[in-house]
Amino acid sequence: MRSKNFFLKKKLKIKDLYPKAKIKKNFLVDNITSLEEAKLNDISFFDKIDYKNFAENTKASFCITTKGLEKFLPKEVDRVVVNNVLFELSLILKKLYPSADVDFPDLSLNLAKTKNLKSVKFGNNVLIGKSVKIGKNTIIGSNTIIESKVEIGENCVIGSGCIIKSSIIGNRVMIQDNCKIGQKGFGFIPVKNKNMKFPHIGNVLIADDVEIASGCTIDRGSINHTIIGKNTYLDNQVHVAHNVKIGSNCMIAGQVGFAGSTTIGSNVSIGGQAGVSGHLKIGNNVKIGGGSGVVKNIEDNQIVMGYPAVPLKEFLKKNK
Amino acid sequence: MRSKNFFLKKKLKIKDLYPKAKIKKNFLVDNITSLEEAKLNDISFFDKIDYKNFAENTKASFCITTKGLEKFLPKEVDRVVVNNVLFELSLILKKLYPSADVDFPDLSLNLAKTKNLKSVKFGNNVLIGKSVKIGKNTIIGSNTIIESKVEIGENCVIGSGCIIKSSIIGNRVMIQDNCKIGQKGFGFIPVKNKNMKFPHIGNVLIADDVEIASGCTIDRGSINHTIIGKNTYLDNQVHVAHNVKIGSNCMIAGQVGFAGSTTIGSNVSIGGQAGVSGHLKIGNNVKIGGGSGVVKNIEDNQIVMGYPAVPLKEFLKKNK
Amino acid sequence: MRSKNFFLKKKLKIKDLYPKAKIKKNFLVDNITSLEEAKLNDISFFDKIDYKNFAENTKASFCITTKGLEKFLPKEVDRVVVNNVLFELSLILKKLYPSADVDFPDLSLNLAKTKNLKSVKFGNNVLIGKSVKIGKNTIIGSNTIIESKVEIGENCVIGSGCIIKSSIIGNRVMIQDNCKIGQKGFGFIPVKNKNMKFPHIGNVLIADDVEIASGCTIDRGSINHTIIGKNTYLDNQVHVAHNVKIGSNCMIAGQVGFAGSTTIGSNVSIGGQAGVSGHLKIGNNVKIGGGSGVVKNIEDNQIVMGYPAVPLKEFLKKNK
Repeated sequence: MRSKNFFLKKKLKIKDLYPKAKIKKNFLVDNITSLEEAKLNDISFFDKIDYKNFAENTKASFCITTKGLEKFLPKEVDRVVVNNVLFELSLILKKLYPSADVDFPDLSLNLAKTKNLKSVKFGNNVLIGKSVKIGKNTIIGSNTIIESKVEIGENCVIGSGCIIKSSIIGNRVMIQDNCKIGQKGFGFIPVKNKNMKFPHIGNVLIADDVEIASGCTIDRGSINHTIIGKNTYLDNQVHVAHNVKIGSNCMIAGQVGFAGSTTIGSNVSIGGQAGVSGHLKIGNNVKIGGGSGVVKNIEDNQIVMGYPAVPLKEFLKKNK
Repeated sequence: MRSKNFFLKKKLKIKDLYPKAKIKKNFLVDNITSLEEAKLNDISFFDKIDYKNFAENTKASFCITTKGLEKFLPKEVDRVVVNNVLFELSLILKKLYPSADVDFPDLSLNLAKTKNLKSVKFGNNVLIGKSVKIGKNTIIGSNTIIESKVEIGENCVIGSGCIIKSSIIGNRVMIQDNCKIGQKGFGFIPVKNKNMKFPHIGNVLIADDVEIASGCTIDRGSINHTIIGKNTYLDNQVHVAHNVKIGSNCMIAGQVGFAGSTTIGSNVSIGGQAGVSGHLKIGNNVKIGGGSGVVKNIEDNQIVMGYPAVPLKEFLKKNK
Repeated sequence: MRSKNFFLKKKLKIKDLYPKAKIKKNFLVDNITSLEEAKLNDISFFDKIDYKNFAENTKASFCITTKGLEKFLPKEVDRVVVNNVLFELSLILKKLYPSADVDFPDLSLNLAKTKNLKSVKFGNNVLIGKSVKIGKNTIIGSNTIIESKVEIGENCVIGSGCIIKSSIIGNRVMIQDNCKIGQKGFGFIPVKNKNMKFPHIGNVLIADDVEIASGCTIDRGSINHTIIGKNTYLDNQVHVAHNVKIGSNCMIAGQVGFAGSTTIGSNVSIGGQAGVSGHLKIGNNVKIGGGSGVVKNIEDNQIVMGYPAVPLKEFLKKNK
């Protein structure tokens, strides 16, 4: 899915960021992104051996890494070697994107007027930021806030009291009342007395035909994006943390929670109040029973239940 | 409790809906409702043998049913025989109530004025739809939205930032800030790439002296209604799905969730974060411990706890 | 932390409240508070033998207690002996603070203007009550409501759609969109057909450098206060009940719930969807796994998981 940059980016060259580093060519930094997505003039980061293959083939011009890992980087990639990659990454993100670590409310909002957004229908007190795009026949409920640069497709229905930022939303998407989409995720480096807030420059990307029920929260990605796939339906009060990717045609019941950076396949159904831990991979066609707590990866076509979640047969045997 | 129709209903005769069916008398369709509540000129539906008794005695003029079940219907009831009753029902609902399958925000809202609603007190930016009724001495907080046709009794206190639609609310009801009441429930027929949204024509009915704390979501019924009984109290962030019926004098603690079509008796207390599965019957005077996951019916006067919930003694024995 | 009285207090002498009691000196009632915090001219209450030491040393002028407990009170403390202390306390609170048992929305709100609150930046439709204090460089998002007498420190960022009452908030506090802070807690005396609502005169006190993510609910205290300690971070949809005290440098993940009157130490981390029962004491440096249900006190430095939560080693052994 298409993404974009929602934050003010400073024009900095790599030597402005690392005046003392050995740098072959002083380039203007274009972006900070993952090893596999990085292009020329991007900064990337490499902190886990799992990403060795991506590191060996990265197109990044510069990489933040550790003493143990730097040998896997191509020779032409300039680098800085640190003890704590995420801490260093957070510092550099903050220099390049100075306003992405706190959810500053958009102070450029104005009352929506149909004349600027043809064939869009607005309720009362709809507040719209700058450079917002909204497709034809979309309806936006009262007291809803659409912050600057957000894009919403055609034939969508956005309820009342919603707050949407850092998001790109497809066509025929239904969002019920009071959803909060695109806020900063729960990411920071724990420091006693004053944590270091991790800048979140990612988007929330919502595909066509998605339905999101009332009171959901969907955090934007930190470096990558939070994604909801086509025709996936979320019930009330679901919480989707930063960098979560949910596939197509999923059914997520009420009060389910996803911790950060987890990937959910397509055609997955999840019962009410279930929770999925962070950094997991859940396959396609998986069914997760209500109230379950998923703490491990799940392969395709499995049915699981329980806390911790186990195959359904095992759960039923345990509890008969 | 008294209910009403909140949706635009098309004037259609049964032969407009079923031009090819054998129909004894071509009547103007009055409503679509359950077998036991249906009256002359209503359409009903019969999809489970459990409802055999209701089917045999239904007053409906027309019924959607299956080949195996149609024999239980009275001879005088016209019928259509289909494979998937809910799918057919959804199609017919959509024809009769074309705007009940999506929560279109009410675009007829206006700033509340006391002159139209005597002795009601309003905060700032209270938005009120058409034909709203509010009883005397009721107070409505700022930024709250009351959509068209909603009825609220006397001496109620509705907090700020609430959104209320498709609801009839009794007297002395207290609703704290930011509750979402009456939105469409999580009902649809799963179809790959584009689910079929099930129209929701039911109400939320809230009896006298109920208290609902901050951030709750209460979905309206699909065909029947979602009901909260007299003097029942809900804590923060509770989720009540469509068609749930909760009795009187219940205490529901924070973050509890009820899946659809479950019935809860009176004098029931439920601890925080507990969940109750759908289509269950929980008796009177039941106590459900915090964090429990209820997956079976519970008889009167039981105390249960655990996931899955079991009698408290059994839970304590297991976990000592 | 500093607290204050947010509610209208009637000028009543102790003999107005108890005309028939034997009272040595008829004083103007200053406050109703706990045995250990009470001063001269305060009313206190004593209903559990656990508080014997506080009772023996209380500075209160008057105490509500039971027949079995009154012997522990100093002779000079006037008292009333009742069967149900909380019921009596609720009655007296209601007489002294007649508007603290229902969350009446603040009807004195006005559109925020920077001229009254220098160097504060406001979004659109920010509504501010009387005698609100907001420190310099603080930013408040659109549609947010700050009720009368609330105090917010310097360099804070309050998101959009928040509702804040009965609260004192420190410096550099970040509150994301749509948080509800300071509402009445879930406290009442169960009475068939019409519960008795317990007045809540406590505050929510939020220390410096706290971060609270989107959609959280934090109830104010009943008699004491609800407190969030310095540099503690709460993720989305967390529920903090009345009188909960959370220490410094804690990390509370999404959808966690705290039942009333529980105390959490400092440097505590709690995984997503965990729940902590009421009236517990959780030590410092405790780690609670996601989805856990904590039903017992936990000593310092423990790692627990499960429902009910047990030491992590035990949980892993049970579930391997």
